[in-house]
Amino acid sequence: MEKRNSIFIATSLDGYIADKDGGIAWLDSIPEINSIDTGYNAFMSRIDALVMGRSTFDVVCSFDIDWPYQKPVFVMSRNMTEVPEKLQDKVYIVKGTLSEILEQIHQKGYHRLYIDGGKVIQNFLKEDLIDDMIITVIPILLGNGIPLFADLPKPLDFECKKSIVFLDKVVQNHFTRRKT
Amino acid sequence: MEKRNSIFIATSLDGYIADKDGGIAWLDSIPEINSIDTGYNAFMSRIDALVMGRSTFDVVCSFDIDWPYQKPVFVMSRNMTEVPEKLQDKVYIVKGTLSEILEQIHQKGYHRLYIDGGKVIQNFLKEDLIDDMIITVIPILLGNGIPLFADLPKPLDFECKKSIVFLDKVVQNHFTRRKT
Repeated sequence: MEKRNSIFIATSLDGYIADKDGGIAWLDSIPEINSIDTGYNAFMSRIDALVMGRSTFDVVCSFDIDWPYQKPVFVMSRNMTEVPEKLQDKVYIVKGTLSEILEQIHQKGYHRLYIDGGKVIQNFLKEDLIDDMIITVIPILLGNGIPLFADLPKPLDFECKKSIVFLDKVVQNHFTRRKT
Repeated sequence: MEKRNSIFIATSLDGYIADKDGGIAWLDSIPEINSIDTGYNAFMSRIDALVMGRSTFDVVCSFDIDWPYQKPVFVMSRNMTEVPEKLQDKVYIVKGTLSEILEQIHQKGYHRLYIDGGKVIQNFLKEDLIDDMIITVIPILLGNGIPLFADLPKPLDFECKKSIVFLDKVVQNHFTRRKT
């Protein structure tokens, strides 16, 4: 099966995934967007598993909600040694280089991966390991914050295959890595 | 007549208007885009005049082409004292604060303004003086460069009214300032 690493994330108009204090209250600057389908469920149905970093995992755990993922979640962590009991069979710790981690996950039969978390996405991009990016732009200029994108060893070409405007306010751009 | 300040600019997927050396060769990473109509002429027909900084003016002058603008160009410059002879009646020097400059231009009867140049756009945004932004995203991650957006004294809400994909590759998002 074709291996694909995808991201599905929201940014501000100026490309931040969190404000300078790590806050995401600005995601609610257009609250109506939370009550419509922006393709998240369809995206989730197309992936086999998630890959995230320790800090994203901790953020998800801190939410006062049931575990939100139906697909296996692989947490990249050097220090974590065990998964909380209630998340056994749902969450797996993976260690090593990105290639080693991907190899482990692929060998378990998971090929279409949702890569999540700012730092993890940046590390995957540094090694040119992202195939698809669905970026929902919340149209607010924050002025500063934690950027989605960071330095790269070389430029990477993508192409925008689709763009959808929601509510006459929010735009979602679908990019695919263009290999020439 | 309604006063509007608009920008029409291309950025990389990671929000840069030039690479770290100021280069724009990456704008040609999808060369076909230069031979199609991405709405520039329609945009130009809707504006009364351009406002740019000295450095953008110098860049335009450095191109080995005829003067490209049919509309009056106002160059914001503290140091420039006169306009090259062949550009008299086409280019005007303006000085002062942004409000003073806009006042001067409005008094001449020009109300719908194309604000161009990275620094000038950032300064207009700092004073919340941009109404419309048409941003054409060339889908390349540069990794670093000169960003379109910079720090702001406060966040600014926009809304995306329209999005167009060109050539299955390039996306152009149309944002309008949302005043609540």
